[in-house]
Amino acid sequence: MATENYNRLLSIYYDINLLESSSYLLTWDNETNVPERGSAHRGEQLSLLAGMIHEKSSSEELGNLLATVEEEYTKHDPYCDERVNLREWRSEYDRLTKLPNDLVREIKKATVDGRKFWLKARESNDFSLFAPSLQRIFDLKRREAEYYGYVTEPYEALFAIYEPGIQLPYIETVLSQLRDDLKQLVRDIQGSSVAAEIKNLDEHIPASVQETFVRKITAQIGFDYESGRLDIAPHPFCMQIGPGDTRLTTRFDEDYFPSALFSSLHEAGHGLYEQNLPENAWGSPLGSYVSLGIHESQSRLWENMVGRSESFWDYWLPIFKQDMNAYKDLTLEQFHLAINKSNPSFIRVEADELTYNLHILIRFELERALVNGTLETADLPRVWNEKYRDYLGIEVPNDSVGCLQDIHWCTGLVGYFPTYSLGNLIAAQFYHKIKIDYPDIEEDYKIGKYDRLLDWLKSNVHHKGMTYRTSELVEKITGEKLSATYLLDYLKSKYGKIYKL
Amino acid sequence: MATENYNRLLSIYYDINLLESSSYLLTWDNETNVPERGSAHRGEQLSLLAGMIHEKSSSEELGNLLATVEEEYTKHDPYCDERVNLREWRSEYDRLTKLPNDLVREIKKATVDGRKFWLKARESNDFSLFAPSLQRIFDLKRREAEYYGYVTEPYEALFAIYEPGIQLPYIETVLSQLRDDLKQLVRDIQGSSVAAEIKNLDEHIPASVQETFVRKITAQIGFDYESGRLDIAPHPFCMQIGPGDTRLTTRFDEDYFPSALFSSLHEAGHGLYEQNLPENAWGSPLGSYVSLGIHESQSRLWENMVGRSESFWDYWLPIFKQDMNAYKDLTLEQFHLAINKSNPSFIRVEADELTYNLHILIRFELERALVNGTLETADLPRVWNEKYRDYLGIEVPNDSVGCLQDIHWCTGLVGYFPTYSLGNLIAAQFYHKIKIDYPDIEEDYKIGKYDRLLDWLKSNVHHKGMTYRTSELVEKITGEKLSATYLLDYLKSKYGKIYKL
Repeated sequence: MATENYNRLLSIYYDINLLESSSYLLTWDNETNVPERGSAHRGEQLSLLAGMIHEKSSSEELGNLLATVEEEYTKHDPYCDERVNLREWRSEYDRLTKLPNDLVREIKKATVDGRKFWLKARESNDFSLFAPSLQRIFDLKRREAEYYGYVTEPYEALFAIYEPGIQLPYIETVLSQLRDDLKQLVRDIQGSSVAAEIKNLDEHIPASVQETFVRKITAQIGFDYESGRLDIAPHPFCMQIGPGDTRLTTRFDEDYFPSALFSSLHEAGHGLYEQNLPENAWGSPLGSYVSLGIHESQSRLWENMVGRSESFWDYWLPIFKQDMNAYKDLTLEQFHLAINKSNPSFIRVEADELTYNLHILIRFELERALVNGTLETADLPRVWNEKYRDYLGIEVPNDSVGCLQDIHWCTGLVGYFPTYSLGNLIAAQFYHKIKIDYPDIEEDYKIGKYDRLLDWLKSNVHHKGMTYRTSELVEKITGEKLSATYLLDYLKSKYGKIYKL
Repeated sequence: MATENYNRLLSIYYDINLLESSSYLLTWDNETNVPERGSAHRGEQLSLLAGMIHEKSSSEELGNLLATVEEEYTKHDPYCDERVNLREWRSEYDRLTKLPNDLVREIKKATVDGRKFWLKARESNDFSLFAPSLQRIFDLKRREAEYYGYVTEPYEALFAIYEPGIQLPYIETVLSQLRDDLKQLVRDIQGSSVAAEIKNLDEHIPASVQETFVRKITAQIGFDYESGRLDIAPHPFCMQIGPGDTRLTTRFDEDYFPSALFSSLHEAGHGLYEQNLPENAWGSPLGSYVSLGIHESQSRLWENMVGRSESFWDYWLPIFKQDMNAYKDLTLEQFHLAINKSNPSFIRVEADELTYNLHILIRFELERALVNGTLETADLPRVWNEKYRDYLGIEVPNDSVGCLQDIHWCTGLVGYFPTYSLGNLIAAQFYHKIKIDYPDIEEDYKIGKYDRLLDWLKSNVHHKGMTYRTSELVEKITGEKLSATYLLDYLKSKYGKIYKL
């Protein structure tokens, strides 16, 4: 039986989450529907709600109640529902209250300006317009890290916002191994003769035809359209508005269908996670996803391990050809090769499954150095371009497609990039375990069945909510610490076969 | 120069309005987009916001500040910006604080139950299932009226919620004249031989084709799609989310195009009003519409006076025939006749321009008697059916298409119905004045121009916001008190011509 104080706390957080989910709908609508002249007002609505949410979740009254309830539960099992929620509430409350208001305001201002200068710099391809602003943001983020506290370097504290509980030195070792091996794999592929045989996927397919197919395929893997939607947005995303309401977005390129198809499988992977979180715990950490890394593991698993596998297309290719009325001559092997083409390129969001991680590693190394003060922003373009030459073997032609391409830093998202690669690592490690549990899992895909896979994900990941943090969950499920081995094995085996290495 | 206190008040109300406009978006989305299983959560979000809005707008602190500011402005012109806002804020504050919390809760509970029983009763066509619940609602509404206060009868106080400043005895005289004359006109039309010549408008037109035409026509009358949208909803409505964001909805019947077309012109009339309210006063009464009656006058004017006129279709019919690829043989005269067919029917929302007012008059008379206690709910079906026989000459076959058809009463909307007919009266009175100012206004429609009309509405109505209340505004613009004459003249002349009376 929960204490009266605990229930009071639960209900306060429920209301805060309702406000937050309201602001999610405003955001979703802002990305999908808002008329051109309506977005200024939307900004005002969102800023009011953000202020109210911040005020409520960092109030002294809430802090006192939280402390009282913590006292009441010191002797309980740390993994009982109440202790799990208390652990996460505490962590959030501390993060929200550790920063002095002055610093919060300064960061807010610096990132509003930052976004402006970033846009200008990118437009005119002139990094110097953005450099002072970016320097200011990183200086402030360093101060932010000081307030949170860390053991060896400021970057630790910022990384911990997105992946609490994963030790930075450990993740560094994992990512370094990933980097070194991937660099080699990319070089090997560059030397392969297979590249010349790859078909282009540029047949024209009307958006409406693509959309029907995307709906069919996402529904069949298990996304529930009675509890969700698919809409169009310039930058695809998935958003849970609340129980029974999870929304995917995508965009259609009529001359390049993989854009919508794989981004939809990716977002549906996120969506399946959201749709299968424990609904009755909605509004508390127990009903929430673990971390960005775990979230990304779900999207990558469906997009890449499943959606780019030969078994998957063994079932879908005939349907695809019929529905799309296109690519009639392509064999399964040719199709599989075409959707797995790997090619070093400048833009992260367009990168393939293999090179993507190198884009992330570059950003991880650079943002870490910028926060820790071992790199000056003025030197960023030079070092960025050097790393692209070293890791991907390409010459960045200008900063707009170089160090100015991502929006993250100018909005204050620092420590966020590694979660993308974490997602890939975890997806591979989970998938390795799934194949141990069900060695014939890929036979399911050949008949268009995904129940065993989805049930495995539900019971091991989705239904657990936030009970365990990232590293714990990975160990709990796979019996091992997070490791680079499984992603590397998966990529080496897959690309080795495809490129006949 | 506004006082500091006044500015504080303005800013508090601005934030309350931002919360409200956020809840409007949640409502809009609930009607247009929400997945089947997402509406329970939406209810929770809306109820939290409603509670917060109510708390903020009825707080003692706000009341004190309001009283202080009123003191500061006693000597100012009653129509200066500040006094106009203070007048409306006071009126709202009193309405929100006059009711004891117990009564508010009781009404809330009674209407939640009411809606449930109403649905059941309508489904099983058994009024007795709803009668006790309806009696309870009207008893509570009578108590509500007691708290607001009135001169001669409780209904006055409820009517004043929707149309403050219009005296009930006055409106009663106007509506009685309307009733008596319309009853006669309906009888005359029933006897006309023209009815037999009217063509049916049942050619099949795909929804997407209709939609394109609806967008074209609403854009041309002046609805700005950079500041608005058109979407599909089961019950068409118009909603302003904020400056630059006004949203129309409609529904398409592929075998009866007038449904979408005229409902869209109607909603666009509302939309034009919202889009042309003073944007810089958004969040205060000055930036808001006057009343439901004035709002409805705008929709009816565009839908009926303009949209069902022969001059309007003189321009549009050739385009319509081409775009829709339908009705190729219809002459302008035949088309005009068909879209103006008048026929007594059971369902209010499907009624034509002429008989619609009789549907409203019946509801006005009945809800007034129910509130004042001169009619018992048990007798409602009998009296309802008698009035339909008397006013419209038809026999109501069952209560589902009789006194159970509208949702208003079960949700506590009592005193609301007359605003629909007020809208028609005001539209006709405005239109009469417009024709005095521009005797050749209908020549504009023949060349697809609406600037003079829209500019007239903007400067006389839209741009004024809430400066004047309904009766004042009507007198200010037309130089006369609100009257039944203009609507009657308009209907008699129009239908006299059409039906050769």
